[in-house]
Amino acid sequence: MNDAMTFPTLLRDVRKRVDERLAEWLAPRVATAASISAEVGVAAEAARDLSLRGGKRMRAALVATGFDAFGGTGDCMPAMLAIELLQTYLLIHDDWMDDDDVRRGGKTVHVLLRERLGDKSLGDSAAILAGDLASGWAQEALLECDVPATNLVRAMKAYARINVDVVCGQLAEMTASSSGASAVRPFVETVHALKTASYTVTGPLLVGAALAGANDAAGLERFGRPLGIAFQLRDDLLGTFGDPSATGKPIHNDIRQGKRTALVAELVRDAAGAKLWASRDVDAIVKAMEGSGAKSRVESRVRELLDEARQALSALGPSLSERGRTLLEGAVGALGERAS
Amino acid sequence: MNDAMTFPTLLRDVRKRVDERLAEWLAPRVATAASISAEVGVAAEAARDLSLRGGKRMRAALVATGFDAFGGTGDCMPAMLAIELLQTYLLIHDDWMDDDDVRRGGKTVHVLLRERLGDKSLGDSAAILAGDLASGWAQEALLECDVPATNLVRAMKAYARINVDVVCGQLAEMTASSSGASAVRPFVETVHALKTASYTVTGPLLVGAALAGANDAAGLERFGRPLGIAFQLRDDLLGTFGDPSATGKPIHNDIRQGKRTALVAELVRDAAGAKLWASRDVDAIVKAMEGSGAKSRVESRVRELLDEARQALSALGPSLSERGRTLLEGAVGALGERAS
Repeated sequence: MNDAMTFPTLLRDVRKRVDERLAEWLAPRVATAASISAEVGVAAEAARDLSLRGGKRMRAALVATGFDAFGGTGDCMPAMLAIELLQTYLLIHDDWMDDDDVRRGGKTVHVLLRERLGDKSLGDSAAILAGDLASGWAQEALLECDVPATNLVRAMKAYARINVDVVCGQLAEMTASSSGASAVRPFVETVHALKTASYTVTGPLLVGAALAGANDAAGLERFGRPLGIAFQLRDDLLGTFGDPSATGKPIHNDIRQGKRTALVAELVRDAAGAKLWASRDVDAIVKAMEGSGAKSRVESRVRELLDEARQALSALGPSLSERGRTLLEGAVGALGERAS
Repeated sequence: MNDAMTFPTLLRDVRKRVDERLAEWLAPRVATAASISAEVGVAAEAARDLSLRGGKRMRAALVATGFDAFGGTGDCMPAMLAIELLQTYLLIHDDWMDDDDVRRGGKTVHVLLRERLGDKSLGDSAAILAGDLASGWAQEALLECDVPATNLVRAMKAYARINVDVVCGQLAEMTASSSGASAVRPFVETVHALKTASYTVTGPLLVGAALAGANDAAGLERFGRPLGIAFQLRDDLLGTFGDPSATGKPIHNDIRQGKRTALVAELVRDAAGAKLWASRDVDAIVKAMEGSGAKSRVESRVRELLDEARQALSALGPSLSERGRTLLEGAVGALGERAS
């Protein structure tokens, strides 16, 4: 990696390399699965195809950033693959829970497996197992990193922690949407910290830094948590006010699904907003999110969180290289201020 | 552990210690989950309660056996907890897939969570996540082992391998039962090797041995694979011809669910057996399994496999202690010749 590399350049480079290596890494594993039976092969292929079908590879880029920023030498590619396979596992289970049909421009795994296996309940079971399989692959990939064993153990601990946090966040979000529990900012941000910050920002950075032998986990968490929450708030804003042709996601889906986003938390702060939210009138809700100041409050919260992340970054100790500092600053912009 | 300890004694001792430590280990984690929201706490409690509700702790005992047999010093308890939490994860997902209502004498996790959360689809989603949570906990537990990092990395690799194998075995079995693919002995034994031998025998032994610093994975696999398959065949025999008051499981469930057990593989070897199997007449099928020699062929296969395991045991190298050899011999009897 050369000294002048910026985060967007790194991201482009990582995307290309991860796409290639992931295809190579998965090929023999899918072949092994297919040698057991055709159906096992079908499930393994579905997990592979989702893994290879696009994805920004931003999490992989953050692993590389964490590794490089703390002076890692050698190759952390297996950990980058692991983080992308973790994402595959989580997406497969999430899409089944949300009953979504489309992911990354193709059929979701449970929809595909229902078709391929000719049975809804069998397809659903096979999809859960395809997710479980991706989780096992992710662990295997991470363990292939050629670094000192003590660094690898520390990285595995960060990885295990992501697994626990993200599942708790998903449980909290899912049961809050359905039970109608009040959406207040601290709860929404706790969920974002667990569900998004952990596996999108903090976790990948910690895994990369641990592989490099870094020890300042607390400092990186102080950086990753606000940045990850800001990333999710930006996602919420884009889901309601973004340009679908840029985001590639259908607009207003969150509102239709009754998701307790930060915008909702701000909207329902007063009785009129709460009543409107209960009405499920999508157009009126969107209008009120703008008119009531909910949108601008969320935007201002994003700015606060990004400032917090930048402050945490400047407090990070001398073990952080200058190049690493530049990359992390770039990540703040790329994640927090994106339009897609 | 004293020199005269036999496998049944070890198993009793392990059961008591694992039950205690698992309760202690899980308490703060369930509290953390409950601090996020009441519903996250409910899901975490469901995973904990299943973990603590009985279980023979045979897999934990095999971790201890592998550790002790190869001269491990110190405490491998965290790995014993990890293997039991892996079992929790797999049981939760399996029970949902099979739509079973009862496990270890209580409600299955998805049935319980449907009730507690007041909604079938929400309960099912929460159950999948409760399983995912147990999987994350298992990884965290294993990483707490106080052994040299190189040993721990090797144990993690054995652990990740179990995760992949067991899911492939589960996929193969599930799709074979449903698709009506032919049940032939090699396929049935491949499934047993992946689904049962890996996480019941070979995996736990390999994890324990790796923690102790042992390197003869191939030798232990040659021992664990036939023993694990024999364990599953014994399970199949007990499910059809066992005493429900001793096994604690309803009789003939496998046949009613259309499971492709080894008994079925033997029964459908001729056209008359295949026709009978297709009839779904449980009493006639059980009778024919006895009359056609299917049962005695499976029993004789169990004896062959146990002989194979004993031969593999005597071929294991000098790094195996005498006490270890005695324990492993005891495990052959306890797993392969059990009546419950």
